[in-house]
Parts: sequence; structure tokens; C-alpha cells
Amino acid sequence: MVEVGYYNGKYGPLAEMEIPMLDRACYFGDGVYDFSLAHKDKIFVIDEHIDRIYKSAAMIEIDIPYSKEEMKAILYEAISKSECEDVSVYWQVSRGTDIRNHIYPGADKKANLMIMVKPGKVAGIDKRFKLITLEDTRYLHCNIKTINLLPSVIASEKARKAGCDEAVLHRGDRVTECSHCNVSILQNGTFRTAPTDNLILPGIARAHLIKACHELGIPVDETPFTLKELMEADEVIVSSSSTLCIQATEIDGKPVGGKDPLNMDKIRNAVYKEFYDYMGI
Amino acid sequence: MVEVGYYNGKYGPLAEMEIPMLDRACYFGDGVYDFSLAHKDKIFVIDEHIDRIYKSAAMIEIDIPYSKEEMKAILYEAISKSECEDVSVYWQVSRGTDIRNHIYPGADKKANLMIMVKPGKVAGIDKRFKLITLEDTRYLHCNIKTINLLPSVIASEKARKAGCDEAVLHRGDRVTECSHCNVSILQNGTFRTAPTDNLILPGIARAHLIKACHELGIPVDETPFTLKELMEADEVIVSSSSTLCIQATEIDGKPVGGKDPLNMDKIRNAVYKEFYDYMGI
Repeated sequence: MVEVGYYNGKYGPLAEMEIPMLDRACYFGDGVYDFSLAHKDKIFVIDEHIDRIYKSAAMIEIDIPYSKEEMKAILYEAISKSECEDVSVYWQVSRGTDIRNHIYPGADKKANLMIMVKPGKVAGIDKRFKLITLEDTRYLHCNIKTINLLPSVIASEKARKAGCDEAVLHRGDRVTECSHCNVSILQNGTFRTAPTDNLILPGIARAHLIKACHELGIPVDETPFTLKELMEADEVIVSSSSTLCIQATEIDGKPVGGKDPLNMDKIRNAVYKEFYDYMGI
Repeated sequence: MVEVGYYNGKYGPLAEMEIPMLDRACYFGDGVYDFSLAHKDKIFVIDEHIDRIYKSAAMIEIDIPYSKEEMKAILYEAISKSECEDVSVYWQVSRGTDIRNHIYPGADKKANLMIMVKPGKVAGIDKRFKLITLEDTRYLHCNIKTINLLPSVIASEKARKAGCDEAVLHRGDRVTECSHCNVSILQNGTFRTAPTDNLILPGIARAHLIKACHELGIPVDETPFTLKELMEADEVIVSSSSTLCIQATEIDGKPVGGKDPLNMDKIRNAVYKEFYDYMGI
């Protein structure tokens, strides 16, 4: 198998996997997920991702019926089933399987664990992004990594239709994040990124960018920035677990960034080096 | 069978039905739905519900691969499979089945139709609701009946934990709707209900309440009302396809309404009569 699916202990080719219609993921989006890249027998910063899915689950009172060590073992087993050396691993925990009813099911209904493994590699270090800006219409729980992702799906499709790679979302003037990445800027030698309130996801790549800045002596400012500051920034950086640190060169058809290549390179090289070192590539 | 499931042409007992893990409903909540009550061979105002799901689908560019007449025929077939005379019918259309990717799948991936039939009856005319108020944290697409329902699920559970039947949501001062019902008030003989902008679902029961008011000569005001107006209203009315017109008697532990029983009764009797007449009960 190349693409592997897993559901509550059962493995199979991803395209053939089925889950109960009554899994609350199917009709409420009542679940949380996480995602990382894997190479051979390594999953990048797996403990951070596992910690995050437990936090996401706790915030919406989903009780994960595994210990963190058990979940980790299952994820390693799942990637080992793929013939492919470089994969992405997506895993999702939903609140359980029951007749549709908004209120939570009883404690006898255990949460479901679903995993999808497919070929995947980190974005090349020379990759550049074009972005569009869109009003952020998502719910006010963006700090929780849930599968209520329709506004992000719509924004991503709008970006694609505009010939772009991602959409930068904003609430009024304030830039929040992209549809499935965080966005940060370099401004006068400072790394600026939105604070981790309820309007953005606390990205793990974002945390590693901040760590790299600390190590490089680049000041970090976690206060909100505006659309105007985004457009006038020295550099615009898009980050996620599969696009560690991508430089954006165009927003809404206008050239952006490119004015602090030295710090841009330093940060990008640092996070890519950390990734390759961890993965033994 | 009592509880019936359907997925893309296949029927089975609801609890045994499975759907592909790669259905975009499962990991993005990328779908729309509708719901009505049925009695014997009747589904209440089926055409209005079918029109609404087509509108919901169109608003997020899901192309339903059936005509409205075909969908209706499938829904009638689905309810006929249940041994039960009084059922609810829930149906959902998701964007298709494909490897997880935020952007929309190609046109070769058809939308999926899923149906769940289970025993269900309209709420009794003597039913009364207790409510709690909660800040509305949902996305800004509440006019589209999608399956991104997590904030509604959380609000419903909070209501249940508070010993209440529903949660009234508000954005700041403005009352929007309940977690899965609309909310309206009677104030000085006028029926007030929030306008159908992007902050509320255009409820079909709500439309029938308005129609009843027109027929009864009760003025209708579709402008937003505040939490204070809700608490001080002559009557508070909660409506949905399964709770046509429920009087709320308590909000956040304080007694509400009960000050215009004449109009309350007139409206409630009118919508229940319409329901029973349509269904031949």
C-alpha cells in the first residue's frame, strides 16, 4: 500500500476505507485533527503534534481513549504500512458514533481515531507563494484544530481560482492567518506574527519560526498586524507543517516583501535545517 | 427496519451504514443538509426543504447530481423503508470523495447523497422551553445549512448541562438565533424575528410563523432585536422543523414571556393546524 487508512484498529488502502455514517465527524464535523510529515520511521516533532491534538480535544471535551504513547505507537505503525518513504500523516479524533443529536453522546460512546497516510514531502526551500486577501469569516474557535473547515476550504478554492497558493484572512484591518497556514512578517528586522488568541491556530511551524528567531537574535513581536503592514512588510512568511517557511512574493497581484533577504534566508535556513536534521535527511 | 440509512443508492439499517473515509464530509464538514418530519407517505413541506438544500449547495458551489424531482423520489423511497409511521428524515449532500485537499475536487468527483431516517414526531403543542443565553461564536455563513456545526453542538450541550432545552445565541447585544432553532418574540402585538442575513438560518418553520402572522393580521417586524428586548418580550417563541412553535418560559433562570397568551395561542394553533392538515393527522 502507498496510501493507508486506519479506523479504530482496522487498516486498509485509503480509498477503500469506510467509517460509520453515524460517526459524528460525518454530520457535525464534531472532531479534531492533527497533521505532520514523516520520513522513513520518523514523524516530525510528533510529541508537539500529539500534545496539540490532546489540547484541541480537551477544549471541546472530547475524551481520547488512548494515552499519548499509545497514539504515538499507532501513528508509527500507520506510517510503517505505507511503501512510501516520504508521507504525510493526518489523524482525526471524533466524539463518537451515535444517532444524530446535538448534545454529546453518553460516556459509553468512545471517541473514534481515524488516520490517513499518503505520499507527502515538505515544500522545497525555493518555493514562493502568491496570495490573495479575503475577509476572515470563520468561527471564533480558530485556536482549536477542528474539522469544521468549510470557510478554509472556500478560501483555498478562491485562492486557487485566482491563480494563487493561499489566502490571507483578515478581520477588518487585522490579519489573522491563512486558510491553512499561519502568516508572519519581517518589519525593520523584527519578526511579527499574530498572537495565539482564539482567532488563529497555534501553528507548530509558527512556534519553530519563533524559536529560530530567538536563536538568531531576531526580535519577535506577537501583536496583531494590519493589512497595510502586511502589504508594506520587508518580508511575508507563510508557514505550516508542510510548508515550513515559504516566502510570499505577491499579494492581490502586487509585489510584496523581498526587502530583507538576509533575515529571510537566516530564518528559512534555520527551520529547514532543523527539519532535515530531525528527519535524518 | 426502523432506522434507515441511505448512501448513494444503497440502503441499510442506519447503525450498520458506512461511508467512505474520503467523503469530504468526514474531514472538512464539506456538505449541506436539510431535515423534515414525515408521517406515513408525507414529508412536511418537502418542496421548501428541497429548494433550501439546493440553495445551500449553490452558495458553496456544490453541484447536486440529481434533479429536485429525483431527490424527492429518493427521500420518499427512504421513508417508505422504515416500519415506523412517524419519522424524521435528514439528508446531506457532500462535495464528493477524494484525497484530502482543501481545494475543490475535479468535476469527475460527484457529490454524495446520504439520508438518515429515524423515529421522530413534532414536539407537543403544550411543550415549553427553558433557555440559556450564550455568545454566538459561529462562522459568518449561518444562512447556509452546512454540516460545520461544532459551535451549535457545544452550545446545545451547554444548554443541556444547565438543565435547559436550547441556547439563545447573541452577537454582543443582538440576538441571532438558537443553536438549532430560530427565536422570535411578540412585543406589543408585533411578531419580531431577526432578518435573514448571514447570521441566521432562514428557517422554514420561521417562514411559516410569518405566514401565520400575516394571515392572522399580526404585524411582522424583521429587524434585529436585543437581549434586553428578548428578556422583556411579551412572548418568546422557539421554532424549527421539529419544534414548530415552542413557547419559552425561562431564560437564564429568569421567567420570560407569558404576557400575550392570546396572540401566542393564535400563532401556535395556526402553525400546528397547518402541520396536521398537511400531514393528514
